[in-house]
Amino acid sequence: MSVELPGAADLQAAAARLAGRVRRTPVLEVPGAELGVPGRVLLKLELTQHTGSFKARGALNSLLVAAAGAVPAAGVVAASGGNHGAAVAWAAQTLGLPATVFVPSTSPAAKIERVRSFGADVRVVEGYYPAAAAAATAWAEGRDAVAVPAYDGFDVVCGQAGVGLELLDQAAGAAHVVVACGGGGLFSGVALAGQDAYSVTPVEPDGCPTIHAALAAGEPVDVEVGGVASDSMGAPRIGAHAFAVARRLGTRSTLVTGEAVLEARRWLWDACRVLAEPGGAVALAAVMTGAVAHDGDVVVVVSGGNHTDVPGSR
Amino acid sequence: MSVELPGAADLQAAAARLAGRVRRTPVLEVPGAELGVPGRVLLKLELTQHTGSFKARGALNSLLVAAAGAVPAAGVVAASGGNHGAAVAWAAQTLGLPATVFVPSTSPAAKIERVRSFGADVRVVEGYYPAAAAAATAWAEGRDAVAVPAYDGFDVVCGQAGVGLELLDQAAGAAHVVVACGGGGLFSGVALAGQDAYSVTPVEPDGCPTIHAALAAGEPVDVEVGGVASDSMGAPRIGAHAFAVARRLGTRSTLVTGEAVLEARRWLWDACRVLAEPGGAVALAAVMTGAVAHDGDVVVVVSGGNHTDVPGSR
Repeated sequence: MSVELPGAADLQAAAARLAGRVRRTPVLEVPGAELGVPGRVLLKLELTQHTGSFKARGALNSLLVAAAGAVPAAGVVAASGGNHGAAVAWAAQTLGLPATVFVPSTSPAAKIERVRSFGADVRVVEGYYPAAAAAATAWAEGRDAVAVPAYDGFDVVCGQAGVGLELLDQAAGAAHVVVACGGGGLFSGVALAGQDAYSVTPVEPDGCPTIHAALAAGEPVDVEVGGVASDSMGAPRIGAHAFAVARRLGTRSTLVTGEAVLEARRWLWDACRVLAEPGGAVALAAVMTGAVAHDGDVVVVVSGGNHTDVPGSR
Repeated sequence: MSVELPGAADLQAAAARLAGRVRRTPVLEVPGAELGVPGRVLLKLELTQHTGSFKARGALNSLLVAAAGAVPAAGVVAASGGNHGAAVAWAAQTLGLPATVFVPSTSPAAKIERVRSFGADVRVVEGYYPAAAAAATAWAEGRDAVAVPAYDGFDVVCGQAGVGLELLDQAAGAAHVVVACGGGGLFSGVALAGQDAYSVTPVEPDGCPTIHAALAAGEPVDVEVGGVASDSMGAPRIGAHAFAVARRLGTRSTLVTGEAVLEARRWLWDACRVLAEPGGAVALAAVMTGAVAHDGDVVVVVSGGNHTDVPGSR
């Protein structure tokens, strides 16, 4: 299994393509002392991106590349009841393309509604993600449509890399970046963008140990997924792109408990009025628990905000 | 009625005093086209400040000035069941000082709880804000305590000015800044900080027309307050500092409807995953409705985020 990884020119081309179309998300600086860690913690507020997560970058880049050819009449298809589905629906709407999104019936109702709000033709499929993915594949087979993968695609990785390119400017002094890793689109993009400037630690909740299992096995393997952040991080196996990046860079991954994720989510709300979804708080959980050791400044990507429940405390 | 207004050196001294103690809040840039207005809309995310509003700046500056003398044994006292109360409680906790905060029983329970969460001795007073203010005054009379005003104080205005000083750097090209105006602490601080660089429009919901009424009457006058943002903007009359600033700068104020405020709040959540409280969305409402005309870039201060209900849509 080998994949072509994007080079610096590919990442720059994607950034140029997306300029003015996706948001340069802001960074909130917090003294590490507030969290009991050294340096400053630089929170990259990627939940303020279009559609509430970084997924908008990769989805729109993929469609812009496809549109440079000519998008077929059947338009765009994707399988996802979550952030990827919303991102594909938004990107298609932005470009005036029809989108069909297959969502598993087990997705949170609010996320399904959000996909619909961006104008997509939503098809609810009984069951979990694999059932929706199979339905999308079957639907696409008889049609001429552009399928946008959720994480394991060259153009997807190039799009997500924009988070890292912005950090080269916004967090020039930081030698360490921490990101959540589901299928690894965000991880691989950010890691490739900053490979000469910072190191990246991918973090997973212990219920979704996809890259952890792959690095242990020496190759991507299927894992059972569940737990507090599985609606956004429940990829059943790490993407080939992400695995290749991790191998090339000698990446080590980190696991955090669901409890630590919810505690990080609560802190973001209580102390910063940032309402992350659980998956969006996974990277911070690793910093707060000390699972990621660092000196100096550390960047934490707050990658998504598509849950509507507010942690109840203060 | 005349008050001494801070000069540039006073604002800089406050900024130096607060450096590292309050947050330099980030700015989210959105193309005006998303809102049907020219230029870029620069959202100053002041709700990510300590305690969830700009009030932390003025409260901490006031206590730091007082502490430079020596805070008396009775500590700090304030009247507010809202953002000011939380800010004073937090500032006192930060400096290790005891705080007594009188809150009206009509304040939202979540805001009262937030005041308590910062370690203050909370005294609930039956009725509305004037009752709590009277109780605070009575309590302070027999004691040697530092009273922190909610908006009409020299050191409070100097503290809130930090928002404007940061904008001189973060939004150097913007000639117009829009802020919510309750008692006018934020307005006057931001206006003084940027008087050579940008103009400022104070915006009020039509249920709380404090500066509007004062400018019409030629002097601060008492007004009835109510409506969607009255829990954070229900000052019964504009502060003397704010009125003097408005007079000096020839400021014109703007009113928006409660409906427009809630629509702006909903947009911030839907499009940016920023959960502002109604008062925190007042300035944006004026831009979205075209009540504030501008060309080029416009800065909108999202001043607070201490409501916990999420607008229900997508």
